[in-house]
Order: sequence, then structure tokens, then C-alpha cells
Amino acid sequence: MRMSELSSTTGTPVPTLKFYLREGLLPAGERTSPNQSQYDQTHVDRVRLVRALLDVGGLSVAQAAAVVGALDDDTVPLISVFGVAQRAVSETSLPKGALEHESGGAERIAALCERQGWNVYPNNPGLAMAARVVDTYTALGVDVITEAALEQYAQAADLVAAADLAAVAAAPDEHEMTTVVVVGTILGDALFAGLRRIAQEAESFRRFPLPEGTPAPGTATTDEEC
Amino acid sequence: MRMSELSSTTGTPVPTLKFYLREGLLPAGERTSPNQSQYDQTHVDRVRLVRALLDVGGLSVAQAAAVVGALDDDTVPLISVFGVAQRAVSETSLPKGALEHESGGAERIAALCERQGWNVYPNNPGLAMAARVVDTYTALGVDVITEAALEQYAQAADLVAAADLAAVAAAPDEHEMTTVVVVGTILGDALFAGLRRIAQEAESFRRFPLPEGTPAPGTATTDEEC
Repeated sequence: MRMSELSSTTGTPVPTLKFYLREGLLPAGERTSPNQSQYDQTHVDRVRLVRALLDVGGLSVAQAAAVVGALDDDTVPLISVFGVAQRAVSETSLPKGALEHESGGAERIAALCERQGWNVYPNNPGLAMAARVVDTYTALGVDVITEAALEQYAQAADLVAAADLAAVAAAPDEHEMTTVVVVGTILGDALFAGLRRIAQEAESFRRFPLPEGTPAPGTATTDEEC
Repeated sequence: MRMSELSSTTGTPVPTLKFYLREGLLPAGERTSPNQSQYDQTHVDRVRLVRALLDVGGLSVAQAAAVVGALDDDTVPLISVFGVAQRAVSETSLPKGALEHESGGAERIAALCERQGWNVYPNNPGLAMAARVVDTYTALGVDVITEAALEQYAQAADLVAAADLAAVAAAPDEHEMTTVVVVGTILGDALFAGLRRIAQEAESFRRFPLPEGTPAPGTATTDEEC
């Protein structure tokens, strides 16, 4: 197909597609004349993926380019595919702020791993992420990350990881498996963050009932409510 | 204390503090002479909070300024404090990309809310976030978000929300409650994302065992491993 058709099929303006080409987010088409190229279904899939990473995943163009590069790298082995792809994604998409000071967060997360029976390599990016959050709470003096709260988060992470890996195992081939891992790592964060906000509000109504006479939210029975 | 002491107490360089003042992230100190101001513990707390939002939460300066503004707004009522503060945070920190096309995501999330018994107002930002992720998966043709997977994510969200609200309920006063909500909404996302990456790797080793002879990761028993 020509670029105009790639544009209409994916709902993406031609100038945006040209931008993706320049930034290395979209591979060049097959040149059929000095100023015309042909694109195929792989380009359609790639445009959709790039838009998912940018628009829904909230990645920067540079981050999306790094993720797409990892996807195209055939040297990523299937064994521990989550570990490898996670690092590719996490290195680009996770905030890298320096810790104010380390205050036992790493040790608490290591102890949590042991209690959960989690076997992971020490370079798993989640270890540093989680430790940094715990240290930040300590630095803020907002003493709300109790061991019980950490364990509840950990149980929730186990539930989500089981769903994630079931999705990977269901993929028909290695290429799709890798796509599921990369897309799932980014979109899964957004999906969980969304559901967490819904569950928080629902839980807050249970804990802090509205005063009498306040209009209450409903359960999802009409277009107006959920 | 003078700015130099605020700097040493918080481990934040003076030029960075001046930047926070200019950007409205840090309230002005009490001016004691034409070129000197006094700062107090509230400034120390605020600098730590701003660094948590920027460095660990990954917010932009503009996003952090909006969050800090919401924190300082005394009109936020305690009732449904999660709902109100969530919106303040979510409106600034969540990606806003347009959907390629809506393809039933909103309906699936509404049905999920009903099955979970989640009562929420229709303007809860999580509804649109979660629906957009589901629609994005559909657009990508990566058909991995089964109803079973959504329900597993929802159960996990319930566990995390229960821990989050327990933390809010444990706060000693309304101001701290609001801080816990705002900080927790942002840092909790990062904490869960970190634990999810750990749990995914642990689960991937269970599902896809390493070939014999490959060095295996250990459980957390030394500084080298977790």
C-alpha cells in the first residue's frame, strides 16, 4: 500500500507517519520510485504499536524508539523473555532520580522477596524501583508503608504476574510472545493504575460513608454510571 | 533556617531550591532582609515531597506544581478524599492520548465494575484509563486481555486499594490524610510497577525453567541476590 493508505488504515496523519520514519519508529517501505514507497501489514502493525506506546503508554519518542529497537532485536532469547524485555523497557521508561538517601528500602524489599519465594536476578529493575519508593516514604516521614501493606502489594503483584505470564504462554510464536511482553509491561502498568483508582474510590465509599442526602454513585447499570 | 541550611538538610543544591521557588513548587520563606529569607520545617517537608514527585514519581515540573497546588487547597473535603485528590493527580500525570477507536473497552470495564461490586462516580479517571488500555490491545490485535485476566487484575487492584485506604485511615489528621492520598497515588503506582517486574521474573522462571547448567537466580539470602 502507499503511504496515504497506511495513513487511512491506521487513522494516523501522513506528516505523523513521516515523523515516525525520521525518528526510526517505523521502518522504511520498499522504494518503488524516487518519491514513492510501498508499505505492508507489518507497517500497519508497527504504527499501531508506536501509537500505543506514545499515546497510551505515555513514553517519549526516544523511549518508544528504544522499545521498538528491543522488539526488532532477534538476539533476545525466549528463556527469561520477561526479564530481558523488562530491562529494555524499564531502562527507558522508568524515572531515574537519585535517592535522597538509602534507608533500608533495598533490605526490606530483599526480605519481602524471600518471604514471597521470589527468585530473581539482582539486576531486575523492579528491585531498585520498589526500594526507591520505600526509601522515599521514609524520607518524607509519611510512615505508611508497613510490612503488612508491602505484603498486600506483593500478593497483588503475584496475581497480576500470573495473568501476565499466562498471556505470554498463550502467544502463538516467539515474535508475538516478545510483543506481548513489551506491550504488556507498558500497558499493564496503565491498566493496573486505572483499576487501582476505581478500586480506591469504591473502597473509600465503604470506609468513609457519604453523609445522608448526598447523591451516591451507582453500580454500573447505565451509560451514566459505573 | 537560611537557604544554605535548607540545602544541607534536604541534600538539595541551592540553585535547585531557587528553581523550585521560581516554579512555585516551594513557598517563599519569610524575608528578613532585602536578600535573605528564613525557612522552617514546612519548607524541609515540601522540598522532600517535591523531590519525591519529580525523582521517584517521574512527574514533570508542571505536573508537580499542579499536585502541590492541590495539596495546598484547603477546600478539598475529607469525604471521598481519594476521589478528589486522584482527579487532581490523574489530570496532570496520566497520558492523554486520543484513542485510535473505541471498541468496547468502556463497556467491558463497566461490566467488570459491576461484577466487582465497585461503586464509583462516572468521572473516576481510572474508568477512562482502563478502557483506553483495553481498546488499545484490541487495536493492536494482541488479544491477551481475556475476561479472566481482567478479573485477576481487578482482584489485585482490590488488594492494593484496601492497603491504600488503611494507610489513609491511619493518618493522624486531615492534612496528613491528604498528603498520604496524593503521595500514595503516585508512589503506589511506582511501588506496584516495581513489584510487578519482580513477580513477573519469578513467575517466568516457574513457567519457563532454565536449561540445565544455566546459573539460576537465588532467593534473597546475600547482598548479591534477591
